[in-house]
Amino acid sequence: MQLDDFCFDGKGTFSLDDYPTNAKIPKAQRERYEALMQENIDRMADLQDRLYAEGREGVVIMFQAMDAAGKDSTIKRVMTGLNPQGVNVYSFKQPTHEELAHDFLWRAVTHLPRRGYIGLFNRSYYEDVLVVRVHQMQHNYAMPKRTTDMSEAEFFSHRHRQIRDFERYLWENGYRLVKIMLNVSEKEQAKRFLERIDNPAKNWKFSSSDLAERALWPKYRAAFTQVIGETATPEAPWYVIPADQKWFARYLVSEAVVRVLTECDPQYPKLAEDQLDKLAEYRRQLTAE
Amino acid sequence: MQLDDFCFDGKGTFSLDDYPTNAKIPKAQRERYEALMQENIDRMADLQDRLYAEGREGVVIMFQAMDAAGKDSTIKRVMTGLNPQGVNVYSFKQPTHEELAHDFLWRAVTHLPRRGYIGLFNRSYYEDVLVVRVHQMQHNYAMPKRTTDMSEAEFFSHRHRQIRDFERYLWENGYRLVKIMLNVSEKEQAKRFLERIDNPAKNWKFSSSDLAERALWPKYRAAFTQVIGETATPEAPWYVIPADQKWFARYLVSEAVVRVLTECDPQYPKLAEDQLDKLAEYRRQLTAE
Repeated sequence: MQLDDFCFDGKGTFSLDDYPTNAKIPKAQRERYEALMQENIDRMADLQDRLYAEGREGVVIMFQAMDAAGKDSTIKRVMTGLNPQGVNVYSFKQPTHEELAHDFLWRAVTHLPRRGYIGLFNRSYYEDVLVVRVHQMQHNYAMPKRTTDMSEAEFFSHRHRQIRDFERYLWENGYRLVKIMLNVSEKEQAKRFLERIDNPAKNWKFSSSDLAERALWPKYRAAFTQVIGETATPEAPWYVIPADQKWFARYLVSEAVVRVLTECDPQYPKLAEDQLDKLAEYRRQLTAE
Repeated sequence: MQLDDFCFDGKGTFSLDDYPTNAKIPKAQRERYEALMQENIDRMADLQDRLYAEGREGVVIMFQAMDAAGKDSTIKRVMTGLNPQGVNVYSFKQPTHEELAHDFLWRAVTHLPRRGYIGLFNRSYYEDVLVVRVHQMQHNYAMPKRTTDMSEAEFFSHRHRQIRDFERYLWENGYRLVKIMLNVSEKEQAKRFLERIDNPAKNWKFSSSDLAERALWPKYRAAFTQVIGETATPEAPWYVIPADQKWFARYLVSEAVVRVLTECDPQYPKLAEDQLDKLAEYRRQLTAE
């Protein structure tokens, strides 16, 4: 089992049902995968240092999932080894009035990291084709007549194309995207919700609306299937990560991050000959003090 | 002579040479055009009020031109009648370090007005295909290898396509763009530079680099020709406004602004029946006090 087993890059037809929520890795392997993840975290730190020094490419890692799939804990466990000076995290909560008064990609762009940085999006602009579609929220927003006249299918197919254009544009302008769907099962979600209810330290993570969302499970799966099918490309593939075994999901995420950073191939900037000469001169001055 | 004579919407081939820098309107007509412009300014104020109240569409009016073509004075004279609460002006100066560390459209998006507002861009992201191309500045920026490997022609043809995609996206998401090129002649520019040099109150507007840019006139015209030819569309046309007669240029700009605001067809929000009933009740309470 490796990362490519869970990668969809737009070739062929996508069905979420083809992707397991549980890779059923024997428990005996857990320690090995945790060690591999630790190696990845060390490599990430080294690669991030070069990425930051070079400032040539930016990386955005985004997480989409049903509730309790492990977004927060994955970010915590996999990304804690990164130098925070060089990381921007942005959580896509309910959009603000100002965000709603702009186009739907606006809040993602305004929170796009500089090149040289890693951006972590906890949820993302994909909310605008997932939760918005499932709850038909597009009807609540002030929209121009040229879109309110569209059918639902046409409206969201436009959005998927807009997202593809946007992601191609980012790619061409020095960004790489890692789009991760943490694929949790309905059964595992129930188990995790119960933990949140039973453990006082986790109570704050549970809200009654979580059950209302859970009731919409089939609608979310249909939306995910269409969204992933229509927005995965070789430059911006989707990783549909089996999330029921948290430790294996984290390992796979660390693999995806190492992969994208390796593809950036970041190099420490090299000084030109005359600049190196100057360095030698500065060395003389300092040692002569 | 009317606005449509100077509008290019992408149909056919564009040549800047087909567009006059001087419409040679008889001076006797100046007073009439100034009166028409004042009428337009009054209509703009009324339409803007509705646009703001409705908040359904946003309008961005952008100005590109050679130096001394009249960008600043046109904004001052044509837009002064607008309610500043509802207008954002952004001048695209030398990009900051933070702006250069992002994709080239980033600073335009971060300064995009809310829907319901009018944004005035004094220069715009078109600088990135005009001054950048003329001065070959793309080589100074940290760019990913996938673009540094491109030929110059390919690189800028990509940018033009990226701009078309971006503008289509904005259109679909409730924005309308008015792209204005103030088309001044080389001779008229020299005259205006001399005024700036001779008039102490205008000295601050002149800089020695203005002459260096002037020397690149043919290169700028070639860049404008290609850019306008490849980025004009029915939804986001270019207006190539003859700018040697300032008062006529301003009239045409006011025509373009009235046109786009009229196309938005903004309406004051209407309350529903039950909300109107509530208003009646509030009226009773207030008059009974």
